[in-house]
Amino acid sequence: MRIGILGTGTVGQTLADKLLTLGHEITLGSRSTSNPAGLAWAQAVGPHGHSGTFAEAAGFGELVINATPGTVSLDALAAAGAEALADKIVVDVSNPLVFAADGEVTLDPVNSDSVGERIQRAYPRSRVVKTLNTLAAPVMVSPGRVPGRHNLFVAGDDPAAKQEVTALLESFGWPAADIVDLGRIQAARGMEMLMPFWLNLMRHYGHTDFNYHLQVGD
Amino acid sequence: MRIGILGTGTVGQTLADKLLTLGHEITLGSRSTSNPAGLAWAQAVGPHGHSGTFAEAAGFGELVINATPGTVSLDALAAAGAEALADKIVVDVSNPLVFAADGEVTLDPVNSDSVGERIQRAYPRSRVVKTLNTLAAPVMVSPGRVPGRHNLFVAGDDPAAKQEVTALLESFGWPAADIVDLGRIQAARGMEMLMPFWLNLMRHYGHTDFNYHLQVGD
Repeated sequence: MRIGILGTGTVGQTLADKLLTLGHEITLGSRSTSNPAGLAWAQAVGPHGHSGTFAEAAGFGELVINATPGTVSLDALAAAGAEALADKIVVDVSNPLVFAADGEVTLDPVNSDSVGERIQRAYPRSRVVKTLNTLAAPVMVSPGRVPGRHNLFVAGDDPAAKQEVTALLESFGWPAADIVDLGRIQAARGMEMLMPFWLNLMRHYGHTDFNYHLQVGD
Repeated sequence: MRIGILGTGTVGQTLADKLLTLGHEITLGSRSTSNPAGLAWAQAVGPHGHSGTFAEAAGFGELVINATPGTVSLDALAAAGAEALADKIVVDVSNPLVFAADGEVTLDPVNSDSVGERIQRAYPRSRVVKTLNTLAAPVMVSPGRVPGRHNLFVAGDDPAAKQEVTALLESFGWPAADIVDLGRIQAARGMEMLMPFWLNLMRHYGHTDFNYHLQVGD
């Protein structure tokens, strides 16, 4: 499959590398064609990896992944353009983290809105699926870094889109039984609001190889 | 131990019942001495359970538990009074849920503040420990309702207070190894912000007998 990934940071590159090994063709998109991270990545990975603008990546992809920081995702998608995103699955893996000078980390939007919902509202013809934002990038594509069973979450208004994304996540190594469908895209709110807790856990454990496993009674 | 519990709702009564069976003496506090829930509870449980005002419950307790809704907790504690709370452990189990007419649930405070932090700021002579707010009341006092291992969290600025509260939680049946210390009271923010996710999970599973188990790599 041709996949466009918006964002050349750790998350974008980690997903791009994994998708390449699975046989997909990738364009990594950024603000400009001269983005050094995008160019270096495309040069390193060979003929099935390309770099380009947000619009080029979105236009290239049969499926588009938003791996930009959540605070700039709407701008990145606007640069990609509604036409390039129309009728496509948009996988939103972002978190809208705001880093203050004093080290405090907050979210914007939060509580009564989320990046996932904003994207779906702004691009009603796209099929937004929120997932993977509850994990560090290495664990996203290598669930085995964390021992035992643990969970991924998906949310979105289009059940068929969630099924396709679930199949893609299974190809990363996530068992279907461990992928929990939280319902409509509004559930992105709760998924993004896990971040402050996740950051506390990261400080507690001193690394990012952890994840939640839901234990459920009868 | 003498324990004052502020709040006569499900959480307050569930904790009170459990603490009674463990041999503690309880005063359940509410806005007025004529609160029907408090009176009925005290009458039902016998000589070691009492009901009274917030001030009476706080004054009675060697340890005080805030089990009021997070949106009114500061008012309840103000009614209890700083003197009655001074130098005591205040266990805050609240979540500041705001229920809108359209069914939407949000938090207030959120993101840059939390009920736990507000209580600690308002009562600097008290030793606030946030815990138990990430679970349904029945699971708080009966962790065995959820199968396997799963986690509780504590946060607070006073390490000795967290140790005492951890011992109390162990007496509820929580193994010490499953109680994760998230650090200072600011971590209450992330713990309270789990609520929207928890509510989605409740809708997904159709009940509240679930909890998070952290799977952690090396």
